[in-house]
Amino acid sequence: MQISDIGEFGLIDKIQRILGSRGGDRQLRLGIGDDAAIFETPKGSCSIATVDTMAEGVHFDLAYTDFQSLGWKAMAINLSDVAAMGGRPKWALVNLILHDKLSVENILDLYRGLKKSARRFDTTVIGGNIAKGRSEFSVTITVVGEVKKNRWLKRSSAKPGDVIAVTGHLGSSHAGLQVLKHHENRRFFSHIIGRHLRPVPRFDFIDRCRKHQISINACIDLSDGLSSDLRHLCRASRVGAVINGDHLPIHPETRKASDRYTKNVYDYALDGGEDYELLVTLSRQNFEKAKYFFKKRLTMIGEITSGKKILLRSGHKEIPLAARGYTHF
Amino acid sequence: MQISDIGEFGLIDKIQRILGSRGGDRQLRLGIGDDAAIFETPKGSCSIATVDTMAEGVHFDLAYTDFQSLGWKAMAINLSDVAAMGGRPKWALVNLILHDKLSVENILDLYRGLKKSARRFDTTVIGGNIAKGRSEFSVTITVVGEVKKNRWLKRSSAKPGDVIAVTGHLGSSHAGLQVLKHHENRRFFSHIIGRHLRPVPRFDFIDRCRKHQISINACIDLSDGLSSDLRHLCRASRVGAVINGDHLPIHPETRKASDRYTKNVYDYALDGGEDYELLVTLSRQNFEKAKYFFKKRLTMIGEITSGKKILLRSGHKEIPLAARGYTHF
Repeated sequence: MQISDIGEFGLIDKIQRILGSRGGDRQLRLGIGDDAAIFETPKGSCSIATVDTMAEGVHFDLAYTDFQSLGWKAMAINLSDVAAMGGRPKWALVNLILHDKLSVENILDLYRGLKKSARRFDTTVIGGNIAKGRSEFSVTITVVGEVKKNRWLKRSSAKPGDVIAVTGHLGSSHAGLQVLKHHENRRFFSHIIGRHLRPVPRFDFIDRCRKHQISINACIDLSDGLSSDLRHLCRASRVGAVINGDHLPIHPETRKASDRYTKNVYDYALDGGEDYELLVTLSRQNFEKAKYFFKKRLTMIGEITSGKKILLRSGHKEIPLAARGYTHF
Repeated sequence: MQISDIGEFGLIDKIQRILGSRGGDRQLRLGIGDDAAIFETPKGSCSIATVDTMAEGVHFDLAYTDFQSLGWKAMAINLSDVAAMGGRPKWALVNLILHDKLSVENILDLYRGLKKSARRFDTTVIGGNIAKGRSEFSVTITVVGEVKKNRWLKRSSAKPGDVIAVTGHLGSSHAGLQVLKHHENRRFFSHIIGRHLRPVPRFDFIDRCRKHQISINACIDLSDGLSSDLRHLCRASRVGAVINGDHLPIHPETRKASDRYTKNVYDYALDGGEDYELLVTLSRQNFEKAKYFFKKRLTMIGEITSGKKILLRSGHKEIPLAARGYTHF
């Protein structure tokens, strides 16, 4: 059987069956299947751990990615998983597979970038490994952090009636990537290019919510694209959703880019991955409280329903929302 | 500047300068440059973390590696780093980069193997990530464990006069690899093939030493080969060493393999990597105590000296021991 026959998530299901639901470990609070794993330490605090990789030709192209940005992003996408669990990152391990065409200066720039991103979010790079591949270049980062016992945010606890909200804008990263691929004048698209090359994990949102006791029911970070990530969340929570297409927060530069390439801007917003914004579900009351603090940086885009369907509403029409985000296989 | 101009360790030196000695983090007890990093948690216990990768065409060849063995080994080489720090592993994250030619069954076998290896040493696989590469296939595993405060074993604390001892045999893994490459009848070389495909981290040694209060001064696991790993240890400890070539523990199958390929068996023992045995330095008294328990499974191979030279003694001759173990660049 080929992996493409069952897809990434079909494969993960089968792996999970081999490893066992908790791998037989009583300290494991949350294993495979969320943004990160949660592990209770003997003294009652909880560790949070996640790993993510960026491979040349798949996740980045050196034709339009500089090494400092690559370092920043490789770190940030892992930190974002920690944010999506409601935790704080503490330390990181960096694994590089390098090929012959990379210079020492390239690698040092990569480290400068990832240090900047780590330091901004109070994370220390404590070690790693460097190996040579045949022709591969990849950066794999593991981040370990902390979260208070029973305070982590799962994908699986969305409730019917919850408001669905997102931080920031949707589709910016994908639009930024299109601009880079078309070798456009960067000056007119600096915001969305920045969102693509140097995404920012949303600890500002998580921290504010904690501080003001705004309770979040479920959370996932937007890495594959709204249509796919919402599906992951709904499936884990056994709920449905209605998304209001007219309310999707889209940056003006994203609209400009979609016009230029005669694409539907909603495809960018619904299916474009790598925004690393947070998709959260919460009660209406908690949403109003959060909205007070975040203003335009938080947008209600729909509602969790008790069915299993995920629908897209536009005007008076409702159509099923297909998952067209990023898939590896 | 190309990486091959300064080598893996020259590159790591430069990276260390960018990151800072402790990355500015006061909880970090041991950062880049040992088998693993040590991090003090807020409640006073210590976490230990390490990452290592196996890439197709570099670290393994599917022509003579089955997927279960690959899984076992990818896990075991990380666990070995934890053993070399005197710690106990707790949990692991698995990062896969896959290509099109791999089937679902291949990947499930890989997980069966790594689960077996993890379970044998009380480690739980708690998560990971799967991505598709262009044509790459690599397995990167992060292992996190525990060690009691100030009880970790460093590379940097060998003392002049210490006995240098190794567990098990030297060169078995490299000899086993040669046998596999020559498509030899596996039956006559089953021990060394086993050592190559399924190395065993030496927790038995570490645990016994702890139990009987046998104090180890310095420790490193033999991944690159004795001549290279001893150099890492001596450099970190600012000491020299004399190795007695006539005392190197070599398995009969390794001798048989070196005869068959008309190679010098000492090249296998001195430079062959991937044995994942432990190289330790300890006082003569502690060595005698350990020897009582481990009998033939522990061998004195030399002595730490106060100079900087690393010498190989054979009969009455002493020659400098060049580091000819595995290097990536």
